[in-house]
Amino acid sequence: MFIKDAWYIAAWAHEVKEQVLARKICNESIVIFRDKATQKAGALRDRCCHRGTPLSYGQVVDAGLECGYHGLVFNTAGTCVHIPGQAKIPSKACVQSFPLVEKDEFLWIWMGDPEKADVSKIVDYPYHNDYGKWPHKHEVYHVKANSMLMVDNLMDLTHLAYVHKSTIGGSNANAHIEAQMKVTPKDTGLHFIRWLLNSTPPPTYKKAVPDIGERVDRWMEFEFVAPGSVIQWTGGLKTGLDAQNNRDQEGGFSLRIFHGLTPETENSCYYFWSAANGYRQNDPQATEDLFHEITVAFSEDKGIVQAQQRMLDETGTSGLVDIVSDQARVHMRRTVTKLLAQEQQSAA
Amino acid sequence: MFIKDAWYIAAWAHEVKEQVLARKICNESIVIFRDKATQKAGALRDRCCHRGTPLSYGQVVDAGLECGYHGLVFNTAGTCVHIPGQAKIPSKACVQSFPLVEKDEFLWIWMGDPEKADVSKIVDYPYHNDYGKWPHKHEVYHVKANSMLMVDNLMDLTHLAYVHKSTIGGSNANAHIEAQMKVTPKDTGLHFIRWLLNSTPPPTYKKAVPDIGERVDRWMEFEFVAPGSVIQWTGGLKTGLDAQNNRDQEGGFSLRIFHGLTPETENSCYYFWSAANGYRQNDPQATEDLFHEITVAFSEDKGIVQAQQRMLDETGTSGLVDIVSDQARVHMRRTVTKLLAQEQQSAA
Amino acid sequence: MFIKDAWYIAAWAHEVKEQVLARKICNESIVIFRDKATQKAGALRDRCCHRGTPLSYGQVVDAGLECGYHGLVFNTAGTCVHIPGQAKIPSKACVQSFPLVEKDEFLWIWMGDPEKADVSKIVDYPYHNDYGKWPHKHEVYHVKANSMLMVDNLMDLTHLAYVHKSTIGGSNANAHIEAQMKVTPKDTGLHFIRWLLNSTPPPTYKKAVPDIGERVDRWMEFEFVAPGSVIQWTGGLKTGLDAQNNRDQEGGFSLRIFHGLTPETENSCYYFWSAANGYRQNDPQATEDLFHEITVAFSEDKGIVQAQQRMLDETGTSGLVDIVSDQARVHMRRTVTKLLAQEQQSAA
Repeated sequence: MFIKDAWYIAAWAHEVKEQVLARKICNESIVIFRDKATQKAGALRDRCCHRGTPLSYGQVVDAGLECGYHGLVFNTAGTCVHIPGQAKIPSKACVQSFPLVEKDEFLWIWMGDPEKADVSKIVDYPYHNDYGKWPHKHEVYHVKANSMLMVDNLMDLTHLAYVHKSTIGGSNANAHIEAQMKVTPKDTGLHFIRWLLNSTPPPTYKKAVPDIGERVDRWMEFEFVAPGSVIQWTGGLKTGLDAQNNRDQEGGFSLRIFHGLTPETENSCYYFWSAANGYRQNDPQATEDLFHEITVAFSEDKGIVQAQQRMLDETGTSGLVDIVSDQARVHMRRTVTKLLAQEQQSAA
Repeated sequence: MFIKDAWYIAAWAHEVKEQVLARKICNESIVIFRDKATQKAGALRDRCCHRGTPLSYGQVVDAGLECGYHGLVFNTAGTCVHIPGQAKIPSKACVQSFPLVEKDEFLWIWMGDPEKADVSKIVDYPYHNDYGKWPHKHEVYHVKANSMLMVDNLMDLTHLAYVHKSTIGGSNANAHIEAQMKVTPKDTGLHFIRWLLNSTPPPTYKKAVPDIGERVDRWMEFEFVAPGSVIQWTGGLKTGLDAQNNRDQEGGFSLRIFHGLTPETENSCYYFWSAANGYRQNDPQATEDLFHEITVAFSEDKGIVQAQQRMLDETGTSGLVDIVSDQARVHMRRTVTKLLAQEQQSAA
Repeated sequence: MFIKDAWYIAAWAHEVKEQVLARKICNESIVIFRDKATQKAGALRDRCCHRGTPLSYGQVVDAGLECGYHGLVFNTAGTCVHIPGQAKIPSKACVQSFPLVEKDEFLWIWMGDPEKADVSKIVDYPYHNDYGKWPHKHEVYHVKANSMLMVDNLMDLTHLAYVHKSTIGGSNANAHIEAQMKVTPKDTGLHFIRWLLNSTPPPTYKKAVPDIGERVDRWMEFEFVAPGSVIQWTGGLKTGLDAQNNRDQEGGFSLRIFHGLTPETENSCYYFWSAANGYRQNDPQATEDLFHEITVAFSEDKGIVQAQQRMLDETGTSGLVDIVSDQARVHMRRTVTKLLAQEQQSAA
């Protein structure tokens, strides 16, 4: 069961150029392609209305997407505009199209009622358009787990001390567990911020910003926007610079990560993420190094969450016990459950 | 659901020599082996009546096929003729046998009521016995698609312009789409012939028969015999030689292809095919080249049809729309549906 | 359906040292680990009570097994002894534990009612502790077949002449089939012994014991203890030495094999086995050679039994016919069926 009246990331914009892209989203097989003339991307159901062949086996021609089997052509609205050897095109010869919007390097898709597809509701992430201040690299992982298990992962950062022991978690188990944590519910999600005030900067921080000093105020700020976006801003400033009131000063360490979780099926999803370097913007190697470090850490998350999914597939969720560190996670789940119920009520 | 009162190709005759062959046909696991004395091939259910072990894990001994687990031996009629350490063989110790006939390099099997297995109904293909006039090579592909989707493929040749763009289809999309097409229904199938009169010979034709000239009359003749045989004769003659009334003249280009589709399961089949060189019979390389070209093209068919099957598995067939070029295909499907209904009525 | 009130082999003791071991037994996912202080091994359900993550992705710490996701720690009794960031541990925060006993190089697990787990019922196999008289090596195979099909295999030795034609079966088909066979039913299993009196020793025997002579009395003694243990003692003595009354003399050939079959699922199991050299104990190469020979033979058993399972999955067991050589096998099956019925009756 998925929230369908919502914008999901279908692809990185650059994944669809001349070539078409097949992706399954909320259990629907989708093909994404760009109109030759306008270069605007469109999303159709990946199934020719003639013989059911996936349109993603076809190619883009002047008039639209040509089926690779018998040559029917569809435009980005899903209208059939050409049937070889046949002058009249019956109106029922069409395929379903889905609202698709290109914004901030993403292609956002709307899987529900097209009437409700309000473009103003798409999450803003302007940092993707600011390579000067936020140089970044991105990825997409295929994860064999329900997308919500990946969001869970991001809502409880105590996992850093266990999953990422050998990478970003470091030996700071207690520091992470004892951080000050403030959760703020929002209508379609939540915001939380964690502060480690007057703490020893981890090696990564010192390496990134050599003169950051011996004591720093560190923050981890996360915003979850249902159903699948998590926006992260993490960093540290020398203690004494009043970081809690002004984090955006020169001389600190900070990075931004966008996490986009898009359901493929009930037990698989796509994990779109980018990592932006906010501390040594003129050093491409710093951006590369950050990307590499995050790649390793997120592969660890993928591994443990996939194992969790396999066990839940086998045993269900009965008997599971929430703990204190689940606060943000439990709130996030409640919000998603509420939104899903609202959508189903509105449909009924 | 399969037509079972029918002859299907179980194997190429040469696939069964000393070694036995396991194959699943119409969802039944079958073992095929040759009697040592007579060299006649027989087909049994691939399941020992003792402990259920596949007989295809055994070996042929003088008295028949010996189970590889505890040594029971069965003859080609499925009668148990030896139980180690036991003098009396109970009558229920037997396995089902299936009528099997070797003809024209094929082993034909009958999966339905053995009483109805009329050998005279087996499709004739004498070209397999005429290596002088029709030198040929053959193959068997395992295709993860319902056998009827592969027959569909052969009934609508407009796919050549799309699936085989880079091979046999060439750049003749319109020529193929606009060909004259004559479909003749038959009791157990259909016949169609397509003519491209006074047309430019494609490069393959000119290469095969250098003095074929600049204008040719080309034909593509197909006969479908339910449930799984398609017999193809394709070629061209210099325009002016009255090809439509006498195709079998010297100096032209022609090839024959046999297509045999045998269901394995509801969404997989075997594709037996041979390609015979009818233009440069004394040149073994010409036969090799033809075989190679067809190999590439039929792999393209296999690829697109498997993709089609996966999508139909996911979405079913609802909403699909027939088009003008489906004429022969739709007729073929109607015939098969009728034969299946007749068989089920007669069984009830 | 499995007998659960019984001891099964969960692992070779050496498989669990610092590292933990995940194994599925009777359809339950289990994690086995050793307590750091006591080195005693324990078995828990492989599912953290917090978020369902497999505990086998964690690591052993001083207090017990630490979950690799959020750091909860459980002792070998399944009690949660630590929740990061939380002082009070709720009583429902626990995981199921299973009785586990280390004995004779095995870890034996009890999957049923813990109240009934009587350690005195565990099969004795003292030869594993006697490297002087019975030097041995061991293995564990994962077999894609119901464990009972593997026990079947051991209860009907006529298969040696067919499955092991090229290895231990040799060309002695008739000798094996005509052996004297005595079956003795027992409450929880059966015992059988086969004698080949005054027979030609096979090459293996002569190679192992060069002065064994030209005529030997050979025995194959097997004891089945439900649900999964088969204890084998095989050997030969020069004819005339009264082997039937005193097999344990110097100068003969003999080997011992332990077969332990533990269900993983309804159609897969673990096959734990060891092979002990009872004829040239001072020659490590003799132990290696014996192990190698058995490895090949048991891989043959695995192959044919997996094929049998696949066919039974496809066709069920209807129509199968018992034969004379099935005597011990049929008795074994009857015993297991009886024990299973008793367990279910007692549960109801």
